[in-house]
Amino acid sequence: MTDVVPWLETEQTPFLLIDQQRFLTNVERLQHRISALGCQLRPHLKTLRAVDAARYILPDLSSPATVSTLAEAEAFADAGYTDLLYAVGISTNKLDRVRALLERGVQLHILLDSLTQAEAVLAYGRQHDVVFSIFIEIDCDDHRGGLPPTSPLIGHIAQRLHRNGMTITGVMSHSGGSYSAKTTAEIVQAAEQECVAIRQAVAQIRQFGIACPILSVGSTPTAHFAEDLSQITEVRAGVYTTFDLVMYNLGVCALNDIAMSVVTTVIGHNAEKNWVLVDAGWMALSRDRGTASQHEDFGYGLVCDESGVPLQHVYVTKVNQEHGVIALPDNHTVKEFPIGTQLRVLPNHACATAAMHQHYVVLTATGEREVWPRILGW
Amino acid sequence: MTDVVPWLETEQTPFLLIDQQRFLTNVERLQHRISALGCQLRPHLKTLRAVDAARYILPDLSSPATVSTLAEAEAFADAGYTDLLYAVGISTNKLDRVRALLERGVQLHILLDSLTQAEAVLAYGRQHDVVFSIFIEIDCDDHRGGLPPTSPLIGHIAQRLHRNGMTITGVMSHSGGSYSAKTTAEIVQAAEQECVAIRQAVAQIRQFGIACPILSVGSTPTAHFAEDLSQITEVRAGVYTTFDLVMYNLGVCALNDIAMSVVTTVIGHNAEKNWVLVDAGWMALSRDRGTASQHEDFGYGLVCDESGVPLQHVYVTKVNQEHGVIALPDNHTVKEFPIGTQLRVLPNHACATAAMHQHYVVLTATGEREVWPRILGW
Repeated sequence: MTDVVPWLETEQTPFLLIDQQRFLTNVERLQHRISALGCQLRPHLKTLRAVDAARYILPDLSSPATVSTLAEAEAFADAGYTDLLYAVGISTNKLDRVRALLERGVQLHILLDSLTQAEAVLAYGRQHDVVFSIFIEIDCDDHRGGLPPTSPLIGHIAQRLHRNGMTITGVMSHSGGSYSAKTTAEIVQAAEQECVAIRQAVAQIRQFGIACPILSVGSTPTAHFAEDLSQITEVRAGVYTTFDLVMYNLGVCALNDIAMSVVTTVIGHNAEKNWVLVDAGWMALSRDRGTASQHEDFGYGLVCDESGVPLQHVYVTKVNQEHGVIALPDNHTVKEFPIGTQLRVLPNHACATAAMHQHYVVLTATGEREVWPRILGW
Repeated sequence: MTDVVPWLETEQTPFLLIDQQRFLTNVERLQHRISALGCQLRPHLKTLRAVDAARYILPDLSSPATVSTLAEAEAFADAGYTDLLYAVGISTNKLDRVRALLERGVQLHILLDSLTQAEAVLAYGRQHDVVFSIFIEIDCDDHRGGLPPTSPLIGHIAQRLHRNGMTITGVMSHSGGSYSAKTTAEIVQAAEQECVAIRQAVAQIRQFGIACPILSVGSTPTAHFAEDLSQITEVRAGVYTTFDLVMYNLGVCALNDIAMSVVTTVIGHNAEKNWVLVDAGWMALSRDRGTASQHEDFGYGLVCDESGVPLQHVYVTKVNQEHGVIALPDNHTVKEFPIGTQLRVLPNHACATAAMHQHYVVLTATGEREVWPRILGW
């Protein structure tokens, strides 16, 4: 991504660019790491939400995948994928769509962490004669949802569902806390903690003679630093395919591994303030400020020159809907950025930036142009 | 919006809901105010970016309108609108699309604030035999782009363009600073300041015998508090059609005027922490934290019950991609929010929240359901 590509210069800005070579390297790297640890990867497809991306991440359509919406589940099912974990707590209003997918032969697993949800699923299953495949969510770090790994409710819910004909397929936890780690040692510890939690949790279920075959852990940081995955059957990660500045700050990737940028054009200057204005505002970059609390705060993104080389300490410092302001550091002047110049901005949070776009422009490993549409909505 | 509407209960969550009665009242209110001040409104259509919304905002297709992208300009031109100001500084790479719109008979006005842009526009115009209609951007409050109102460059650029056959249609300023006003008196002052700036700026142009007929000011706060619009020909405003919590904090609207909410379903509890989990994360609400620096910080939005009644001090306090966490204040418990309950969340910033959706569900004044698609992309 360090040479200027002629067709890129005439593309309408702002747009989201994927560097396919970096993307493929990132995909391969984690796949290899997790296989070497004797485990399976269940990639979370929520970052790019693109069938064209999934073809590279999971060439085998029967491979396990994770999704964050039923819209994704439906689109990936249309593309032929058959093993999908919908990793957001289920509510009754979504069960009709889950059932429709099951009836198409897709193994769509649902997630829950309460007796209320279990009863609702049972009632629906009874009424419509559906056997749901269920994961129980475990809270490994007090971060969001899930049951504490020692909660007797885990066994209680599992028994209640199992005895009434539902399939207890797995337990899962998400180490959300690993995103705020200050050192890689803390990420290693977070990885260990989610494995311990999930082993404890499954023991609560198996003591009742319920198989519960899948032990699922994951987050992009812990997936890259886990050392001991014994008993764990699968690891989930999402943002690893493109990485972003949050992951760079966490030490999970190098700056040159980041495979996503927003390409923008200089549309104005304020020479007195040493400001460069560009046509990428929050509509193209997102409002995500994920690096604000990290050791280097990248504002709304790190600016790179038109060939993709990062400019140290040059950030998008302010955004409106369709305007970005780059308040330059003292060692730069606006003259270095003539009006009309193309720049690239590395994102704080790839999931949030990708979410602002309906398709991605892909610079393939051979320098060609591809367009990958994004799956939209819920 | 205080009665439960049966069809709303079965709609798939999360989704964006527009209360049409409130929307119409807001539209009428500002239209009436600006007319009474002897001025014309040039609504900014960037908030909802929907032709169905524009039909109510501007029933007359020849009315002036503002857009933030050429994608909007093209879509509103397709819908029959003929007078559009593209209110983001122009760059050469966009001129082919501007020309295509001009050739269709659309009066698309472009914006610039530098001699470099003026020369680029002249060169393109000469090469392709196009007369562009140009607004010069004036900086009234040191906020973003634009030339200072007393800058001799204003007259210089106008002359250069005018002598070479371009049309100097107007001067415009945007009182972005009014969004950080602490009192309504400050908004009144910001409104006066943008009018003063724009009157100064146009004088610089007219001294050379150039007509420059349009004096354009605006922002939603100043449009609602401007007292003297003498000489000013038009006012721009965008978010006023739905309002949001930022505007409520500024004293521009009442809570009951807010015509946009995100409807969500309770998907989990953490009773120990007094947390309610919902299926609206940043993907549905946006990452905008516009109220963070205001007198009431609403987190990621103010929670309302299922009929739309706001719950005092109940906020979405944390968001992930598809999860929202409502950390309840002490006077509430999770039992009041059973799993499966529908809630509505009022947005911090309507433009940012609308941007996360591809269509809006509209509760019409008569209780019917409509769907308004959003114009996507750039």
